[in-house]
Amino acid sequence: MELLRRARELEAQGRDIVHMEIGEPDFTTAAPVVEAGVRALRKGYTHYLPAVGLPALREAIAEHYADRYGARIDPRRIFITPGASGALLLAMALVVNPGEEVLVADPGYPCNRNFIELVNGVPRGLPVSAVDGYQLTAEAVASAWGERTAAVLIGSPDNPTGVLASAARLQDLDAEVRRRQGMLIVDEIYHGLHYVADPASAVRHCRQALIINSFSKYYGMTGWRLGWLVAPCGYEAAVEKLLQNFFINASTPAQYAALACFTVQAREIFEQRRTAFRQRRDFLAPALCELGFRLPIVPDGAFYLYADCSALAADSNDLARLLLEEAGVAVTPGLDFERTAPHRHLRFAYTTSLPRLQEGVRRIAGYLGR
Amino acid sequence: MELLRRARELEAQGRDIVHMEIGEPDFTTAAPVVEAGVRALRKGYTHYLPAVGLPALREAIAEHYADRYGARIDPRRIFITPGASGALLLAMALVVNPGEEVLVADPGYPCNRNFIELVNGVPRGLPVSAVDGYQLTAEAVASAWGERTAAVLIGSPDNPTGVLASAARLQDLDAEVRRRQGMLIVDEIYHGLHYVADPASAVRHCRQALIINSFSKYYGMTGWRLGWLVAPCGYEAAVEKLLQNFFINASTPAQYAALACFTVQAREIFEQRRTAFRQRRDFLAPALCELGFRLPIVPDGAFYLYADCSALAADSNDLARLLLEEAGVAVTPGLDFERTAPHRHLRFAYTTSLPRLQEGVRRIAGYLGR
Repeated sequence: MELLRRARELEAQGRDIVHMEIGEPDFTTAAPVVEAGVRALRKGYTHYLPAVGLPALREAIAEHYADRYGARIDPRRIFITPGASGALLLAMALVVNPGEEVLVADPGYPCNRNFIELVNGVPRGLPVSAVDGYQLTAEAVASAWGERTAAVLIGSPDNPTGVLASAARLQDLDAEVRRRQGMLIVDEIYHGLHYVADPASAVRHCRQALIINSFSKYYGMTGWRLGWLVAPCGYEAAVEKLLQNFFINASTPAQYAALACFTVQAREIFEQRRTAFRQRRDFLAPALCELGFRLPIVPDGAFYLYADCSALAADSNDLARLLLEEAGVAVTPGLDFERTAPHRHLRFAYTTSLPRLQEGVRRIAGYLGR
Repeated sequence: MELLRRARELEAQGRDIVHMEIGEPDFTTAAPVVEAGVRALRKGYTHYLPAVGLPALREAIAEHYADRYGARIDPRRIFITPGASGALLLAMALVVNPGEEVLVADPGYPCNRNFIELVNGVPRGLPVSAVDGYQLTAEAVASAWGERTAAVLIGSPDNPTGVLASAARLQDLDAEVRRRQGMLIVDEIYHGLHYVADPASAVRHCRQALIINSFSKYYGMTGWRLGWLVAPCGYEAAVEKLLQNFFINASTPAQYAALACFTVQAREIFEQRRTAFRQRRDFLAPALCELGFRLPIVPDGAFYLYADCSALAADSNDLARLLLEEAGVAVTPGLDFERTAPHRHLRFAYTTSLPRLQEGVRRIAGYLGR
């Protein structure tokens, strides 16, 4: 955030900055979705909706799970939320009592800790690395589990690493957490942005999990603030009550607009964008390695590369600052994501065009004297 | 909620129900606001915004406070939130530590308790009645204040009573709470819907308060989920951090649309609607009294009448059920709002047209044999 502010400051002074720090697709919302939003507004769809969400949208998501993942999910288990942020808050309110622990991967999405702390839970980061595919394992969960552990939270694809959990990993985690009568929370907000065939999803491979998703990333609706939560059987009434109390409902125009995400026209646009992201990744990953960054795993999802910069600098914070000031390239230091080895890592987001990424790489090369 | 469900069930069976239970204006969003939303969408304003909100919207709210209330508020103290719900969550996260108490009026808005409990605070209801104008007094706060008390939360106009706090009441509460180094939280989401000249606002009469407001009620943007929080000096950085973590930002299209709320065209529509609400209140209050309900105070704000029905029934729950089943009129029982004397009270919302309110009164009269 500090760095983003400084980047904006430099731009205000006339400097050109290549943005590789932004966790938001550069694409605006697809035209079919925008037009669905416009139609909804003009029809006067501006009132409150049922707290659980628009029935047609819950059904569309259920169909999507059936079509794409072969998973049958009762629409009554799907709850529309104000962004994935709303779903994360619900998940924590549902399963964490004061003083209870939630196991998270380190590195991971930094806001997770704040949601856990909001309900006076205790986030406990478990280091992950290339050896375990940058994802928590059932073994790591088993050995960290204590009396006060209530839940395990993973992201797949994860932020900042971009890695996808395999079907086996999801199954093992699900079994381990069920055995301990805890709750597995799987954040799939980058799902859809994957560069392999048949990415595994918790909707298919977990028997009991709270699954979080979003219309922000693959569906390109960031500013609309719309997400969803899939709850296990038996949680329906509890989730509905929390939704009513904390949010009343997620944005009505956004829910009507989101219906268009499941049309053929919108899907085509999303897939073109996915191809663009893949091309960017396929350029950026080897280019960074050539510059001396290390990527033990080239990730298969999201739009991030979490690179080891220890061969280039003693402290990633200093490197991030220098890249911004000297080279005009904004990236995010590891300190924003982890406590294990923050000074070794930088996150590169490929949320800008290929020519801009090429320009960024040229500038970094120039700065490093390569 | 139970009652609303039953009302919908009866309607699905073909029954005609007069809705006097709904806490939402019957008007759709005003055309100038809808069209501003449409323009924003078509311009591609669908990305994230700064967590604190669109600068132009913060400034428009500050100008509104200057114009209408003669209060000078630095726009940097105004934070745009996902509905007043988002602002309530922020307020609780800001000021309540686990185990600390928040004093609230009983009766009051039921979700308040849940926001307090989300952060493991303890809501403590203090009975209010006609004697104190259905608002907490500085004296009541002083005598209830304990070691673990962190804050006082009032609504003005309040739900379900519709009463406005006077300037003197706000000043006294502000002074009392400051003296005790607590925080006063003033929920003004019904502000603008007042039927007296110059309603008092905490922005003018409190030196240190968290003030919550919304685009839902007066501005008619319920389903868009947009509100704001005014924070005291010194809280800016803390509020920004919480906003970033918990919400990322409030809906981008909604923020652009809301800019139009401060145009002359929109204001005219809002004022026409305010006149309509006033006419409804001026019909409904005496009509209910003629039927045997008691209204010790005819409130000057919001769109609710909180009526004592003890002369007509032993239990307001039974009466609400019977009015729905026998007379086809939906109202809300006191149980939803208070613990002191829930069985004596019913809330009537005048969020339906005058002819429908007249029909509702006819039906109640018929049921009561008047």
